[in-house]
Amino acid sequence: MSQTTWHYENFEPSGSAIGYRITRKLDEVQSDFQKIEIFETTDWGNLMLIDGAVMLTTRDNFLYHEMMSHPALFTHADPKHVVIIGGGDCGTLREVLKHPGVARAVQCDIDEQVTRMAEKWFPELCDANDDARAQLLFDDGIAYMGNCAPASVDIVIVDSTDPVGPAEGLFNKAFYESCFRALKDDGILVQQSESPLVLLELIREMRTEMAKAGFGAFRTLPFPQPCYPTGWWSCTLARKSGGFDYRVADARAKTFASRYYSADIHAAALAMPPFMAQALAD
Amino acid sequence: MSQTTWHYENFEPSGSAIGYRITRKLDEVQSDFQKIEIFETTDWGNLMLIDGAVMLTTRDNFLYHEMMSHPALFTHADPKHVVIIGGGDCGTLREVLKHPGVARAVQCDIDEQVTRMAEKWFPELCDANDDARAQLLFDDGIAYMGNCAPASVDIVIVDSTDPVGPAEGLFNKAFYESCFRALKDDGILVQQSESPLVLLELIREMRTEMAKAGFGAFRTLPFPQPCYPTGWWSCTLARKSGGFDYRVADARAKTFASRYYSADIHAAALAMPPFMAQALAD
Repeated sequence: MSQTTWHYENFEPSGSAIGYRITRKLDEVQSDFQKIEIFETTDWGNLMLIDGAVMLTTRDNFLYHEMMSHPALFTHADPKHVVIIGGGDCGTLREVLKHPGVARAVQCDIDEQVTRMAEKWFPELCDANDDARAQLLFDDGIAYMGNCAPASVDIVIVDSTDPVGPAEGLFNKAFYESCFRALKDDGILVQQSESPLVLLELIREMRTEMAKAGFGAFRTLPFPQPCYPTGWWSCTLARKSGGFDYRVADARAKTFASRYYSADIHAAALAMPPFMAQALAD
Repeated sequence: MSQTTWHYENFEPSGSAIGYRITRKLDEVQSDFQKIEIFETTDWGNLMLIDGAVMLTTRDNFLYHEMMSHPALFTHADPKHVVIIGGGDCGTLREVLKHPGVARAVQCDIDEQVTRMAEKWFPELCDANDDARAQLLFDDGIAYMGNCAPASVDIVIVDSTDPVGPAEGLFNKAFYESCFRALKDDGILVQQSESPLVLLELIREMRTEMAKAGFGAFRTLPFPQPCYPTGWWSCTLARKSGGFDYRVADARAKTFASRYYSADIHAAALAMPPFMAQALAD
């Protein structure tokens, strides 16, 4: 093997780090918002960093993208109009468009350079970008949600970076109020909600802000995600009312392939470990 | 905060690393078998390394210890005699002894110094060491299993380090034959089986060796474990025959507290992600 180095991301809030063995830097761009770097790894394919934080690797992004999309889409009775805030790597968009019932999927990421880098270094995630149902916007997601027609959206997926920097405004009552207004009565908001082991307090705060905005029912689904701090991640689903039973038969009969998600894994993700249930009082 | 440093474990087989923010080294011993170090971390309590590899932290060892014990014990109809090979930190022993039906639990770790360090730096894991049902041996686990009376054991738990160095002999047909012989017909072998994402080939090889030794049914249960490579780990259960239905009612009515394990989490861990099912042909 030629010369390799190790890249480490020290995650200050958890006092833990994740690292990768790197062969070389493939690309780098300083956008108007953040620094985006692409590395080649020995075992994980390509690696994207944003401001030094690991965003995704070729090898394990399927876990995150499948869990950010399919549980919400199979919980909704008939999702037709989906909005993705963030998600510039286009992986979530690709999963959403695997659902034949989806008529329109809007991806609104503030930073066009993330998508350009994904097209170049993670082309498999951009397979669906030319789908006629897809609309890629490069704009402020907070403004986009604020301007959505009331009761026009079935599912909002908030696929953002950590709640610092550009994404900070995606974790508070004002933003959730926009989501609440844009969603139909049976709509679902789903947001990446960090590590269930070390950031339970953040999940609790997110739910509190969502509740202030009017949401009445919550569910946090944990899943493995080796490239993020602690290797264990979560998404939190919120509804105006109602529960989180999902279309089990449809999930079993789904017409597309998936590597992590299945009807059984969906059920499994709804099982809340006792320490989480206690902390979140589910 | 006083001066801190970061300790990284580069995991060569997966090309990924895990790190912790360290305040100081608390202890170190070179035993006859390996070097054991204890560090104090900022966020994870104490950290034990063996030959530089992370063994456990105060904060997240509950995940591993609960999943190495309770699924096997609630799968067996009435486990009375349990043998733990390895497990020198005593955390698995503690969980096993929470089951009131267990009459005898033997822990056989080759390295007494691991247990001495655990008593000193992870005393909570050693709570059950004085239990009259517990027997702590410091001896060769391969020899111990070879000398067990035939059909005398209900459950063998192989709670070892990675399959290199002292633990290498715990991952082959000869050792599994000893386990097979020592187990009763309805007995269960459970072994830690590394990362389901990056070490599926190892899990497949383990099962092949177990099958050569006579075992006829297998199940691999994934669970989160932030301190191990990729943050996602697994245990593999093997039986001479029969399935892996578990005592759901007993698990629901269990008389002890647990933080990760529950009857629902047990069911969840039995859900096999499609990529694993495909690789293991479950």
